[in-house]
Amino acid sequence: MFRLALINPNTDPHHTEAMGGVALAVLPAGCEVTAVNPERGPSSIESEADAVVAAAETAALVRSLPEHDAYLIACFGDPGLDAARELAAAPVVGIGEAAYTAATLVGKRFGVITTLPRSIPALEEAIEARGLLPRLAGILPLHIPVAEQGAGHPDTTEAIVAAGQSLASERGADALILACGGMADVARAVEQRVGVPVCDGVAFGAGIAHALWSCGLRTSKAGAYAAPEPIPYLGMPG
Amino acid sequence: MFRLALINPNTDPHHTEAMGGVALAVLPAGCEVTAVNPERGPSSIESEADAVVAAAETAALVRSLPEHDAYLIACFGDPGLDAARELAAAPVVGIGEAAYTAATLVGKRFGVITTLPRSIPALEEAIEARGLLPRLAGILPLHIPVAEQGAGHPDTTEAIVAAGQSLASERGADALILACGGMADVARAVEQRVGVPVCDGVAFGAGIAHALWSCGLRTSKAGAYAAPEPIPYLGMPG
Amino acid sequence: MFRLALINPNTDPHHTEAMGGVALAVLPAGCEVTAVNPERGPSSIESEADAVVAAAETAALVRSLPEHDAYLIACFGDPGLDAARELAAAPVVGIGEAAYTAATLVGKRFGVITTLPRSIPALEEAIEARGLLPRLAGILPLHIPVAEQGAGHPDTTEAIVAAGQSLASERGADALILACGGMADVARAVEQRVGVPVCDGVAFGAGIAHALWSCGLRTSKAGAYAAPEPIPYLGMPG
Amino acid sequence: MFRLALINPNTDPHHTEAMGGVALAVLPAGCEVTAVNPERGPSSIESEADAVVAAAETAALVRSLPEHDAYLIACFGDPGLDAARELAAAPVVGIGEAAYTAATLVGKRFGVITTLPRSIPALEEAIEARGLLPRLAGILPLHIPVAEQGAGHPDTTEAIVAAGQSLASERGADALILACGGMADVARAVEQRVGVPVCDGVAFGAGIAHALWSCGLRTSKAGAYAAPEPIPYLGMPG
Amino acid sequence: MFRLALINPNTDPHHTEAMGGVALAVLPAGCEVTAVNPERGPSSIESEADAVVAAAETAALVRSLPEHDAYLIACFGDPGLDAARELAAAPVVGIGEAAYTAATLVGKRFGVITTLPRSIPALEEAIEARGLLPRLAGILPLHIPVAEQGAGHPDTTEAIVAAGQSLASERGADALILACGGMADVARAVEQRVGVPVCDGVAFGAGIAHALWSCGLRTSKAGAYAAPEPIPYLGMPG
Amino acid sequence: MFRLALINPNTDPHHTEAMGGVALAVLPAGCEVTAVNPERGPSSIESEADAVVAAAETAALVRSLPEHDAYLIACFGDPGLDAARELAAAPVVGIGEAAYTAATLVGKRFGVITTLPRSIPALEEAIEARGLLPRLAGILPLHIPVAEQGAGHPDTTEAIVAAGQSLASERGADALILACGGMADVARAVEQRVGVPVCDGVAFGAGIAHALWSCGLRTSKAGAYAAPEPIPYLGMPG
Repeated sequence: MFRLALINPNTDPHHTEAMGGVALAVLPAGCEVTAVNPERGPSSIESEADAVVAAAETAALVRSLPEHDAYLIACFGDPGLDAARELAAAPVVGIGEAAYTAATLVGKRFGVITTLPRSIPALEEAIEARGLLPRLAGILPLHIPVAEQGAGHPDTTEAIVAAGQSLASERGADALILACGGMADVARAVEQRVGVPVCDGVAFGAGIAHALWSCGLRTSKAGAYAAPEPIPYLGMPG
Repeated sequence: MFRLALINPNTDPHHTEAMGGVALAVLPAGCEVTAVNPERGPSSIESEADAVVAAAETAALVRSLPEHDAYLIACFGDPGLDAARELAAAPVVGIGEAAYTAATLVGKRFGVITTLPRSIPALEEAIEARGLLPRLAGILPLHIPVAEQGAGHPDTTEAIVAAGQSLASERGADALILACGGMADVARAVEQRVGVPVCDGVAFGAGIAHALWSCGLRTSKAGAYAAPEPIPYLGMPG
Repeated sequence: MFRLALINPNTDPHHTEAMGGVALAVLPAGCEVTAVNPERGPSSIESEADAVVAAAETAALVRSLPEHDAYLIACFGDPGLDAARELAAAPVVGIGEAAYTAATLVGKRFGVITTLPRSIPALEEAIEARGLLPRLAGILPLHIPVAEQGAGHPDTTEAIVAAGQSLASERGADALILACGGMADVARAVEQRVGVPVCDGVAFGAGIAHALWSCGLRTSKAGAYAAPEPIPYLGMPG
Repeated sequence: MFRLALINPNTDPHHTEAMGGVALAVLPAGCEVTAVNPERGPSSIESEADAVVAAAETAALVRSLPEHDAYLIACFGDPGLDAARELAAAPVVGIGEAAYTAATLVGKRFGVITTLPRSIPALEEAIEARGLLPRLAGILPLHIPVAEQGAGHPDTTEAIVAAGQSLASERGADALILACGGMADVARAVEQRVGVPVCDGVAFGAGIAHALWSCGLRTSKAGAYAAPEPIPYLGMPG
Repeated sequence: MFRLALINPNTDPHHTEAMGGVALAVLPAGCEVTAVNPERGPSSIESEADAVVAAAETAALVRSLPEHDAYLIACFGDPGLDAARELAAAPVVGIGEAAYTAATLVGKRFGVITTLPRSIPALEEAIEARGLLPRLAGILPLHIPVAEQGAGHPDTTEAIVAAGQSLASERGADALILACGGMADVARAVEQRVGVPVCDGVAFGAGIAHALWSCGLRTSKAGAYAAPEPIPYLGMPG
Repeated sequence: MFRLALINPNTDPHHTEAMGGVALAVLPAGCEVTAVNPERGPSSIESEADAVVAAAETAALVRSLPEHDAYLIACFGDPGLDAARELAAAPVVGIGEAAYTAATLVGKRFGVITTLPRSIPALEEAIEARGLLPRLAGILPLHIPVAEQGAGHPDTTEAIVAAGQSLASERGADALILACGGMADVARAVEQRVGVPVCDGVAFGAGIAHALWSCGLRTSKAGAYAAPEPIPYLGMPG
């Protein structure tokens, strides 16, 4: 059966465990999910300075993990995704790309809800790099850092619902993306109250990783994702 | 369990049956696939004149089919996809979009193999509309119409392999897409001989339709995919 | 003299007749306009489900009409335009493309007024496919379905004027497009009250069809618009 | 009846007269064409240094000409087009934009034939600014300066035909544009030998100028094309 | 030492002198700046009609000036920039391109403050031609013509600050560009009050002109910027 | 005087020293360059797996370095550039962005020479993200890994010259970029033999870093480049 390695790029083990549960729940019976996170680095990822550390740790984890049938990089910014594809022959999926893919399958214009305004340019860059800028209805920030989010904070849920309603009614979004794993547990509640699909990259990412495996599709080793050239590394394993 | 309606927009029942089998093979045990095709229209789709007929027939089939858990439109040009999404609340996937999605998950630059040069502009338009033009390595035609293709024609297989090798070695493609259902049965052979993943939209389309269903994601009814306005229709059911 | 076939893709004969009159009025003396519509299909086109039926009927009409000097597809969404070009050697023009072309010749930034919000993504896709997204000032919906529009509804005229004024003064539009044939008869009134050119695709489409004919330009038969490959059709003429 | 002012931005009177004849030939009987050129500046336009002089002279001519029903700027680079639109209330058309418009109406992919390789980037910029880069099949230079071209040079005709055949058969062009007025008189010969429509901006430009006038469409004075602010000019009329 | 020719395309000598001083101030000790302006043409540039005259005069000045180590075209619209590059072998920089370059080096999203709404489309076109549209936060006009601006007008400073604050807080701009030389002397005041870098093209343009010279980089003479073909000119030197 | 911190993201001290010398050579007398590299990581950067390690190390170096007047990240892929901008208030420049900027100032179409074909997609992505894809003439690989390059390898020089000549004569490049610091010492030789400017990001990057400093322009702290949120880091300093 299908064995998925879910890599949480931040160092918060509760987050790792929760996302592992989400992935397992959408996979067919008998599948296995190994959920891991690095031993060093930021406990949440809210800046590029956090992201570069997390990307390096994520790549190192892929390198060190015994072979799985697929890898899921479980941070919305998809840190280290290209590096992971070089290092693995199995398919690798990022939850950011999974969420964008889901949104384009169930709607025409998606809205994104993020934590802080400072993240908007990086989100726009990722959306533009995927060629999806024409399908973006808008990005709204909650003005609340990652650490303060979650189902335990009713105010956060209200803020997410309000942002979603604004994106749907004023910007034309017919699908929503919550650009932060910390918001995942309120996705269904947001969906019900806003009335549009809410696309969770962890769940759908696990689903498309499984679909790739079912179809026998593995990461191409013929081009940019070929195994890295052997290069001398100083002070660390290469 | 998951019940998929696979709609072949052309009127060739052998093709319908073959694609139904491909879809069933990649789904978890217990899933069901209903494969259908219209009772009127072209037996293969090689022009826009064919495609407009097939799109109308496809939409009519979606409208008439009892509720399924997902719909797969099984022609590479995805005829009638937006109309089908208006008419269905369940998720709808096209095999063209599925193949492009697969290619971007396992490689950086995809090459497309089609039948006739006349199809290239429409393929480029579809790729551009998806924002994927920067990831296109190239499109090569076989100069062989649909009706003459298939595993029973060794020459066709050779032509597909030759086009794939040219796309990989000269254009930098690290993934291939066969832009025609008629080529699907040689996909694995092409993959082995060219050495890059060959992305089949029927198989991966069934997989992502299943993944959407697993995640509880349905077509948004809040925007462009809302059910059509009631309009008087002349000479036919609306 | 020039003989234009105007094809109204919907089944409303009053609309057909009115658009035929508009086309005739802008052509030089002695030209002829044959205005037709399908015998089956929707009486107005407000969804993709309507549009796929209309596209098939439009292509069938082009196929069945005796040779004219040019064809004008008279629905703003240009349904079946590429198919019609395959089927005709004479030039074929769509009123949507004609309106966009006019707007780019007399202004720098155009605004579009449509009926329902659900139409906005399809309009944006058509504008993007033409490379004109940078010239779009905005799209405003009237929130009024096609069937309720026209000069006989003073409220509709007021709504169109209000949308036009908003597009001009707040979004920077210096030209307007009414994305629906049903609004055509109020175009001059809107132009006077808003103070910017209002581009009607029926009139200008007839004009450029005539200009193509005057220049001896016919639809290219060397590429994507070559006559369709002969394909067996089931249950209908191919 | 319609009175067109054709402005040749270069100072070659033979060219002016020839283009005036082409324009008159495609207009309905009774129309008038006034063909003029500046009294100073380059006799042909092959560099940006030539073009900036020609643009200033063209704008000055528009400013000085008594009111016409439309203006046609008859140099493929459309020098001074935006300035002319500020200065005129009547519609203004450039032969470059006219040729691109024609090519997109009769084909899917156009090829451009120019004189010198140095012109290619400026042509690509103009095509990109119009949003038409995805429809460009390719640009081929003749490696022959403007002054040496024309029907009197059989070698030039052969070179144009050869470039056209290469664009059609190797690059997928199904329509051709001759990016130089000096090539206009061989357009029909090229069309016959290459087998694809050859789009001449002088003829079609006159046609769409007439179509704009027929529809009552004039240059918008509400935005970027408003009459220039009154500014003190030194050493020349403002 | 480095000798810079600063060319003010308008005919206002006070403006010329002021910009010469700004350029000299940022260059290393010992550098020289020759600041000139044309003897004819508009005293400020607020329309395309002004710009085409200024472009021709700018090119003529470059042609006539004895060789310098670099040229700086000191009008935000960069009139005649490509022509100047054809005419000079030394590097040529425009203050518009310099300001955009600076903004992309110190921020992620820039806002532009201009004088009149009519200028917005031309600014957007220049930004799009540079590929920077995704980085544009917005453009706000002061609704004040050039002639009325400057440090001597407290109201203008307040208007610039207000526009800057709006761009920063509502549109997400983290860098500002003042699209008019007349605003340059209030740049530091705006920077302090808005709290984001204000990028002045005159200062940074002088800096990158010097940097190009330091690196031995000169305008390429191998392509589009080769010296113009010799063409007969009528009534003026070619 | 100006103090530049040059950060070589790889761990090759010879490379660090050589690039420090290049930077110092183009700066005005009296400037200082501190050239450093990480103590761990790859000795050259040829894959994304190398790049993610280098990006994290580069950011850590910026964080640890005492304040300088500007930072130059001296690897063509600009690893860690956005993170560095968050961590520094002084301006930060990458040599990749510097080389692209130089090329667009001295030519219209640039060609890029890289080491291995696998790098082409990442280069194209960087160029596309900067909006410069329309100005790319082409990318040619040497098929030689970084470690084998340099002036000491006559064959490498010949391969670079051959690639440059091909880009200039067949693809229309009028400026060249050597996408690898290891090629920098042959830049002048390549320039002379190919006849087009060769843009070195180390030299020009130092120059524009100096120009930013001269103009008083510092990294914006108002948006995406604000100092990172304080986040708990595990097993390492945050």
